[in-house]
Amino acid sequence: MTNKTSEFILNTWYVIAWSDEVNRTLLGRTVAGVPVVLYRRLDGTATAIHGVCPHRFAPLAMGNLIEDRVQCNYHGLEFDCSGKCVKNPQSGGQVVDALHIDAYPLQEKHSLIWIWLGDRDKAQQQDIPDFSHLTDPARRTIKGLSRVNGGHQLMVDNLMDLGHFNYLHKAMAKLSTGFEDVKREVRQEGNTVFNNLLFPGCKPTVLFQSGFEDKDTIVDQFNDIRWDPIGLMRNQVGVTPTGRGREHGINQYGTHIVIPETVDSCHYFYGSSRNYSQDDETVDALFRQWQQRALNDEDKPMIEKIHALQPYLRANGRTPVMLSSDGAAVRVQRIVESMLKLEQEARKDK
Amino acid sequence: MTNKTSEFILNTWYVIAWSDEVNRTLLGRTVAGVPVVLYRRLDGTATAIHGVCPHRFAPLAMGNLIEDRVQCNYHGLEFDCSGKCVKNPQSGGQVVDALHIDAYPLQEKHSLIWIWLGDRDKAQQQDIPDFSHLTDPARRTIKGLSRVNGGHQLMVDNLMDLGHFNYLHKAMAKLSTGFEDVKREVRQEGNTVFNNLLFPGCKPTVLFQSGFEDKDTIVDQFNDIRWDPIGLMRNQVGVTPTGRGREHGINQYGTHIVIPETVDSCHYFYGSSRNYSQDDETVDALFRQWQQRALNDEDKPMIEKIHALQPYLRANGRTPVMLSSDGAAVRVQRIVESMLKLEQEARKDK
Amino acid sequence: MTNKTSEFILNTWYVIAWSDEVNRTLLGRTVAGVPVVLYRRLDGTATAIHGVCPHRFAPLAMGNLIEDRVQCNYHGLEFDCSGKCVKNPQSGGQVVDALHIDAYPLQEKHSLIWIWLGDRDKAQQQDIPDFSHLTDPARRTIKGLSRVNGGHQLMVDNLMDLGHFNYLHKAMAKLSTGFEDVKREVRQEGNTVFNNLLFPGCKPTVLFQSGFEDKDTIVDQFNDIRWDPIGLMRNQVGVTPTGRGREHGINQYGTHIVIPETVDSCHYFYGSSRNYSQDDETVDALFRQWQQRALNDEDKPMIEKIHALQPYLRANGRTPVMLSSDGAAVRVQRIVESMLKLEQEARKDK
Repeated sequence: MTNKTSEFILNTWYVIAWSDEVNRTLLGRTVAGVPVVLYRRLDGTATAIHGVCPHRFAPLAMGNLIEDRVQCNYHGLEFDCSGKCVKNPQSGGQVVDALHIDAYPLQEKHSLIWIWLGDRDKAQQQDIPDFSHLTDPARRTIKGLSRVNGGHQLMVDNLMDLGHFNYLHKAMAKLSTGFEDVKREVRQEGNTVFNNLLFPGCKPTVLFQSGFEDKDTIVDQFNDIRWDPIGLMRNQVGVTPTGRGREHGINQYGTHIVIPETVDSCHYFYGSSRNYSQDDETVDALFRQWQQRALNDEDKPMIEKIHALQPYLRANGRTPVMLSSDGAAVRVQRIVESMLKLEQEARKDK
Repeated sequence: MTNKTSEFILNTWYVIAWSDEVNRTLLGRTVAGVPVVLYRRLDGTATAIHGVCPHRFAPLAMGNLIEDRVQCNYHGLEFDCSGKCVKNPQSGGQVVDALHIDAYPLQEKHSLIWIWLGDRDKAQQQDIPDFSHLTDPARRTIKGLSRVNGGHQLMVDNLMDLGHFNYLHKAMAKLSTGFEDVKREVRQEGNTVFNNLLFPGCKPTVLFQSGFEDKDTIVDQFNDIRWDPIGLMRNQVGVTPTGRGREHGINQYGTHIVIPETVDSCHYFYGSSRNYSQDDETVDALFRQWQQRALNDEDKPMIEKIHALQPYLRANGRTPVMLSSDGAAVRVQRIVESMLKLEQEARKDK
Repeated sequence: MTNKTSEFILNTWYVIAWSDEVNRTLLGRTVAGVPVVLYRRLDGTATAIHGVCPHRFAPLAMGNLIEDRVQCNYHGLEFDCSGKCVKNPQSGGQVVDALHIDAYPLQEKHSLIWIWLGDRDKAQQQDIPDFSHLTDPARRTIKGLSRVNGGHQLMVDNLMDLGHFNYLHKAMAKLSTGFEDVKREVRQEGNTVFNNLLFPGCKPTVLFQSGFEDKDTIVDQFNDIRWDPIGLMRNQVGVTPTGRGREHGINQYGTHIVIPETVDSCHYFYGSSRNYSQDDETVDALFRQWQQRALNDEDKPMIEKIHALQPYLRANGRTPVMLSSDGAAVRVQRIVESMLKLEQEARKDK
């Protein structure tokens, strides 16, 4: 019972949860329009099956976890980790085939749970992009998750054009200087888009100051962002003493994973993994404060207000006016549109 | 001015209120999509007229009751209990025919107010099913009303398949034992559906324990439910010493009347009428607690969550997988669909 | 970039704000479906430009006012008071034509800010109706603004038929007597509608009692209301000693300006400008109390409840039954429909 029609790309690896969210309590989460229930088996394996009982459509996340089986809390049907209905207490045990539900290929990698909602034979573990910085012992990671009432693409646009930093996040930008001058490089390799920014000769932002004894040091700051389909962003942000190689500086990897929930909402998994001041709790607090303020209090309301304008914009045929700084975002959008079109055509052929 | 098109069956007796809800204060309530205003005349007769003033569409429930007339609170038009506009203070008293509104045949029977929204000539008082247990002096009734944000049929499905008792209501089920074994009989007579359950050799549920000195008595528990169109359910639940006739046991009649309000919501009139421990207030409290917990805190949220999934289910063409235990619910649904189809065709012919 | 399609009349003067609402803080307000941002330039001139940045659709009301320019808070684009994009900090300063946005003709007159959203060449300042009573030094004005979750026309219907006074506002009506008898005159001149009411031989309402030493004086009360497109209402309400000319009495001008925000909501600018007891703060308080009670606590909920019934009324093809007292409201509605039709046809021709 595969999701046959969709406004979403399904043949892709989506992140559905942080590893530490999935345990022996049932977790319901919708990704790309599909309600899923997640749990960890007795042997520790993360597992995901369709989140709706096929009998009377009770949400399985309201049910109970019995050993490795999910029991629906409405009429007691039980499903194993392959989605197979293994108990029907209502009809003398009879189980018809239609009672089996989908299970989804899952990968637990780099502290993230990756799910494949599309055609099983297309799921290749090696297609999961590298987020190994999240579990790199030489780094300290601060992370979080928020739900945004706005389309997934709006949040990706936000992240692929960091030109908004000096405005939307100006309280933080003010603490540094010299970000007016930027060298930008946009590059595409297959379906991966790179957007590399270099700010030569600036004062480091507050997030990096703990790495320098002299807070007035002049540095080159770089911000190299990489996008993989669809909504998987990793950026390396760092500073080097002006003109010297990156091995002489400090940096953090940013994790910005934006996953569609419905057409009107998305999940935003974010993290910062730094290679300096790893044991300094005041630097932990700085990153937590930055994530709360910039991502939750500044980006999220902006995206939600723009989303709320969509009916007006559609009714009046308004399309955004792209700037040259939107080069990366434009490439991303083209890739997404082309992937969706291909997939919708392939579904029609079936 | 009859409601010409409708997604609802109109040629049926709906319950619109408990008798004691209708008095000398105007009560507005929507049934099957039709806004109605209810009140009691000076002579005590319950009365229902269309709930919307035909002039500027003010809700008449916001108006005033003057003797037996409803005065609209917007411009002062007055309507008598036949729906006739009898005063127009705005235009020198002139009343055009279009100002008259519908009055609806009402029956007050067994502490319930029954309304007929369809063709008047089809309204037959004898078609009202028997709910006389509600006013039987040999019984003690505990009752209530709640509004559910879910389609009427989802709540009927819930009630016509009591197999959910051991799961959704397991806190109460735990207090008894032996409910795994059930003998089931489904029967249809005309448009009435019977679903009779027998649980031989079990411990009585907590609701019946006050009827037994020895709380470990083994009994046969039965639950005979009867459905009449559309959404009028009465069940007799009782226990008898194992193998003996029902006259040797105790029982309660359950009232479960589920009335569509809109396509997305319904009214649920519920009651329990027991023939034992009638004067025992602790048993009253048990029933109140059961109604609050099982009906309001367990059934209602489940129905509302299933209702919220409907757009997803429709978009993906999912239909419920029926179990053999759904035999009664399936018959009910077929009757409702066939009644609605007949009525919609009859309306087209007019 | 003009708003090309609209369910609203655009070639008309709308009120968008009270003068004292517009200052050096950006004010976002939607009128006739169009989001607008308002501010006052350094030289004091009130200014309105389109409320949405053309780049990524950020609401400009979330931005910053820098001298006379609006800076978008997302990526820092700046717009001058003509809507011209004068700074693009993202792409080396390059500004393409598509980045310019609409500015709207504004007039500040009689303490109101008037906006023209339609074809600029049709905007004639002299077409703004006379609301000079609001700034007449011989009068004392008490005013306010509320937002109503109901269609603009419903609120206009309310105001153009003051026959609701004795019912919806009966608490206030009770304080006076003799309002049953009314002489009514409806007149139309071009697109202006007049509805003049005379109540001969009544006791003045509480709002006028401060003008009389003897509170039992019998007076003639008049209420002459004038409507201009679309939703601009001014009424003169006054009392004269019975049978004598208006110059012997006292009066107040009522301002009732109802402006569509969306198809489901409107802005209501209201005021009372009296020519008596101007320095009496207890009379100020009487008017504030009247505006709060009658307009916000009585009219607004009635309109919102009627609005909520619209889906039911439309689905059942119900149209309001007009009374002879609705003569003025009917003329108003015809004018509005005809204006909208003309404008929609003119837009198609383009």
